[in-house]
Amino acid sequence: MAAQNAFEQKKRAILNEIDSTQPDLSPKGTIDELCLPIIDLINASADMVTTSSCSGRVSVFLEGTKSYNGEVKIGGKGQGGKWLYVTHDREKVIGWLDELKSKSEFSFELSGKEIPTEKVTGSIRYILYKYEPFILHVKCRDFQAASKLYNTAMSCGFRESGIGSNNLVAIRINIKLDVPLGYLDETSGTLKFFVTPEYVSVLDSLSLSKFDENTRKMQALYDRIEKELINCAPDVNSKVNIMPIETKEERRERKKREGMERQRQLKSPQNVL
Amino acid sequence: MAAQNAFEQKKRAILNEIDSTQPDLSPKGTIDELCLPIIDLINASADMVTTSSCSGRVSVFLEGTKSYNGEVKIGGKGQGGKWLYVTHDREKVIGWLDELKSKSEFSFELSGKEIPTEKVTGSIRYILYKYEPFILHVKCRDFQAASKLYNTAMSCGFRESGIGSNNLVAIRINIKLDVPLGYLDETSGTLKFFVTPEYVSVLDSLSLSKFDENTRKMQALYDRIEKELINCAPDVNSKVNIMPIETKEERRERKKREGMERQRQLKSPQNVL
Repeated sequence: MAAQNAFEQKKRAILNEIDSTQPDLSPKGTIDELCLPIIDLINASADMVTTSSCSGRVSVFLEGTKSYNGEVKIGGKGQGGKWLYVTHDREKVIGWLDELKSKSEFSFELSGKEIPTEKVTGSIRYILYKYEPFILHVKCRDFQAASKLYNTAMSCGFRESGIGSNNLVAIRINIKLDVPLGYLDETSGTLKFFVTPEYVSVLDSLSLSKFDENTRKMQALYDRIEKELINCAPDVNSKVNIMPIETKEERRERKKREGMERQRQLKSPQNVL
Repeated sequence: MAAQNAFEQKKRAILNEIDSTQPDLSPKGTIDELCLPIIDLINASADMVTTSSCSGRVSVFLEGTKSYNGEVKIGGKGQGGKWLYVTHDREKVIGWLDELKSKSEFSFELSGKEIPTEKVTGSIRYILYKYEPFILHVKCRDFQAASKLYNTAMSCGFRESGIGSNNLVAIRINIKLDVPLGYLDETSGTLKFFVTPEYVSVLDSLSLSKFDENTRKMQALYDRIEKELINCAPDVNSKVNIMPIETKEERRERKKREGMERQRQLKSPQNVL
């Protein structure tokens, strides 16, 4: 009984935070809209609560430098690392380079012919283009609930999912791009591109098709979780689409209603395992 | 007792297969040499057995086409997908393009200016360059052993690790490259590259530094597992390096000795949890 109460307390605290108007701890400060349907679905279960999510994104990152065992190590968010562009919105993928150029503190060389003279990768700060897919972390009441969610995710193709400590399930899929675009010439403050703007357009087209595949996978996961883990809703015909169709105000109202319903369910003995 | 016996049976069957001279089920047919020390270390524990591994690799893949819900879907190992080059050996990264050109059934256009006229990504078969890091799957006796291994891996930076069904732990890290190099022009049978050979050289340098980071991470994992999970070896000074220094014959002899020792340990009551 103690463990259940701990989970329920934690769940209530998390849901209160989700519903608050305060920004969350992510760089973006809010939950990605495309995640809201699946977050709401999972949180409607008495045995699960979502703890973090990303709906998928395109990013362009300028590496920093960081010390590693005395060597200079490049990569990660070390000293001087900088997001040049980030979007979770497929409509904002095409045209990112022009937007970046118009705003950036750096100058640009886009000939596609720049190769760093110093081939030793240890001292070069690369510009990296990434597509990263949907990821979701879900805290479960117990190992049984975690296993069920894990198996459901795996069966939908989220093959890099896993259960971690404290019944926290990470739902992951391997739809990625991870491409070095160029490097920062530190002496001139110039971003020098290895690749042409035409190649960047190819990457952008690929990212759009990855956004689409990602959305299909999220919908498949939504449907499977609804069918196999929730299943208790009396109105099975009201299939929620992955695209939210309600306004923010409507959502707030609905969340309030659902919150009260959830409180009622959590207190109901039928949910005690 | 029944569950323990099932694990021990499974472990014995897997170890017999590892020790056999028959090729395994992987495309390569053998265990990557760089994995042997950590595999041997883990299998020396009575509570764990490795089930699959890859030490890290560079690959160049020509996508196939596959049907997906009536649409044509590109990607994965579908119809016509083809490995153009694969190596697990950092010494065989530089020069792969020349080697491929000299052997390939396709002709090559390496101007770096080719952009497919048909921008709809659905019908283009891309050439993808990938660096993929070390991955290891370990079946554990019980959830307690799986949790310990999972926590150890996470603490060494293998942040995409997770526990799956049947106490199978996947140890994963996110050191990747995933780069479209070009596409297959089906009418002429030509591999047309978006990128120049100079850009390929940059990718190769990056892959080499990723191989090095990967090796450091494997060594860190080895050390941590030895310290936190094995720890029962009486000769603590015999630190095994990640690079195997014995011949195949020496290894076979040692494995035979260790196998007998393991049988003895498995039968010993001190290992019953």
